Amino acid sequence: MSTIPAEIDTPDILVDRDVLERNIERMAAALRAKGLGLRPHAKTHKMPEVAARQLAAGAVGLTVATIGEAEVFAEHGATDLFIAYPLWIGPRQAERLRRLGATARIAIGTDSVEAAEAAGRHLGASAADIEVLVEIDSGHHRSGVRPEQAVAVARASARAGLRVAGVFTFPGHGYAPGMPAKAAEEEQQALGQAADLLAAAGFEVTRVSGGSTPTAELTGASTATEARPGVYVFGDAQQLELGRCRTADIALTVAATVVSRHEGDDSTPRRLVLDAGSKVLGGDRPAWTTGFGRLMDHPDARITALSEHHATVVWPAGTDLPALGARLRVIPNHVCVAVNLVDDVAVVSGGELVDRWRVAARGRNA
Amino acid sequence: MSTIPAEIDTPDILVDRDVLERNIERMAAALRAKGLGLRPHAKTHKMPEVAARQLAAGAVGLTVATIGEAEVFAEHGATDLFIAYPLWIGPRQAERLRRLGATARIAIGTDSVEAAEAAGRHLGASAADIEVLVEIDSGHHRSGVRPEQAVAVARASARAGLRVAGVFTFPGHGYAPGMPAKAAEEEQQALGQAADLLAAAGFEVTRVSGGSTPTAELTGASTATEARPGVYVFGDAQQLELGRCRTADIALTVAATVVSRHEGDDSTPRRLVLDAGSKVLGGDRPAWTTGFGRLMDHPDARITALSEHHATVVWPAGTDLPALGARLRVIPNHVCVAVNLVDDVAVVSGGELVDRWRVAARGRNA
Repeated sequence: MSTIPAEIDTPDILVDRDVLERNIERMAAALRAKGLGLRPHAKTHKMPEVAARQLAAGAVGLTVATIGEAEVFAEHGATDLFIAYPLWIGPRQAERLRRLGATARIAIGTDSVEAAEAAGRHLGASAADIEVLVEIDSGHHRSGVRPEQAVAVARASARAGLRVAGVFTFPGHGYAPGMPAKAAEEEQQALGQAADLLAAAGFEVTRVSGGSTPTAELTGASTATEARPGVYVFGDAQQLELGRCRTADIALTVAATVVSRHEGDDSTPRRLVLDAGSKVLGGDRPAWTTGFGRLMDHPDARITALSEHHATVVWPAGTDLPALGARLRVIPNHVCVAVNLVDDVAVVSGGELVDRWRVAARGRNA
Repeated sequence: MSTIPAEIDTPDILVDRDVLERNIERMAAALRAKGLGLRPHAKTHKMPEVAARQLAAGAVGLTVATIGEAEVFAEHGATDLFIAYPLWIGPRQAERLRRLGATARIAIGTDSVEAAEAAGRHLGASAADIEVLVEIDSGHHRSGVRPEQAVAVARASARAGLRVAGVFTFPGHGYAPGMPAKAAEEEQQALGQAADLLAAAGFEVTRVSGGSTPTAELTGASTATEARPGVYVFGDAQQLELGRCRTADIALTVAATVVSRHEGDDSTPRRLVLDAGSKVLGGDRPAWTTGFGRLMDHPDARITALSEHHATVVWPAGTDLPALGARLRVIPNHVCVAVNLVDDVAVVSGGELVDRWRVAARGRNA
């Protein structure tokens, strides 16, 4: 178990390179064994150094959420990018996609006739260089159409001049206790139905894309061609509490210092305050989680409140409160939003600071 | 009511300069009328252009949360900075405070004998240049000591060579429905008691600092010398739902595009999806809020779910769903964390894009 290198000022984000590389290898091997392509979602890490390791381990390409993220990874040499998002394309977005298409294979998502028409209108002849995957709602009820609506969207895309390549879904309802298996099953069913309908309508379906970290290893290779997990590279408190990773798999933590310490009394809890708040941990706090993250070395402590620069940690009875100035590691609830809060991360190996990596795609929301 | 300038790609943060300047003037006038100093919290905006307007309107100085924020504002000319945080000071922090003290009047917070001793140890002779305000817990139960413990912390600070100037508190329990008045009353009582105890112990109490946006105008000038509201410059959905600002006072919104649109059916809600998620709005969602933010021009719409790049908006029955590609303005729940997600903001006036301001202190967590 590594400690916090002395050079680090808190709060700061630490990435354990050894655990990271083990996570990357394990997911690559698991999907390879199933004959399923791995197209990791780079929105989790936004770092070229992590993407390079994923590609070296056999990833078929990268997934990103925005044109801006695609631009950053293309600049760093990525040649196969799927923007897994129902983009609304105007003239500026079309021009950026054209430039991306000059050096990389580019696919985008769509879930409406209108968005497909807008894309065709602004992409013009370049539309033929862009692959489209129709987004399917497999139960998360966010974006995406029902499987039986996929053909209409695919036809509109084809009329608009885009290359219809297949379908994708995000089984986001798998991010809850007891849900990963059910979400993976619904994903499989929805993707299979949509792909079959497209094939029956005369489309050549070459890409069927599913998966998320909770469900990736459950995604069926009989239906899907690839999976898009993201969080698996680092793990986080949500995955830990869902039972989708172990503490030993956590590769990213926030180094924090005890700045305030209270034994508590009748009206106030026995607690300490860390200098890591929502501006470095992120504010995500699903109702089923135990708090605003977890402490790496103190599994029974609970982060009961989070301000911008304070984490309030209620300490387990019967164990001593750490001293003021002690440094502790916090596991964020949702690692994707934590990484997006810093310009770079401290890379550690064997407890030593060995590098700093820039979060090159941080803030690339558009 | 301004619209979204055509040059803006979504998602992006818009600041209405006219509303901003009105908010700055109004708070300045309100506290001036009470004879209370205004020391606005710059963690909300992190922008020198906003700080300059606050100081021009009569602010006595700035409040910041971290040494890094203090450094940014000092570089931009601020000469009176209060780091309202119980800092844990090591050799590197001491050196940075020394450099800050060369150009600005610097005050810090402390809430323990141990932190005061650490500060003195590392600051050495420079401790005499740093003012200390003892942090009091006025009911929020985060950091801070009870009023009756303030004298012990003040004495330790004085022994450590620091200049004890007074006390401060953050009445954060005022951020809930029906709580601002109660929190302001408890703030007043706690600050008054602590200040009296320090004076009785022989300290010259020149600074008694309170206030937050929900309570600033309730802070009593009979007890406090200054208030530290932050959010008032922009307003946000929390302040709106607490009744502490009106829609017309909202100076910051996130420009977003409708990327997915669903009339709904028996099992799925009638909804649209915007391309503004938690990576631009922030993920804060207190239980008492109606959702993950509000729509500026559609008060009855509800943001029921937020992913990193999607806001799911359930639309009021009886009104048409906006078209795909329509652009809407979203009011973040907590504006401080939204601003911290972008490198710069679009400044609008009369519906025109007039400038871009850099979020110069973004990410300065340490």
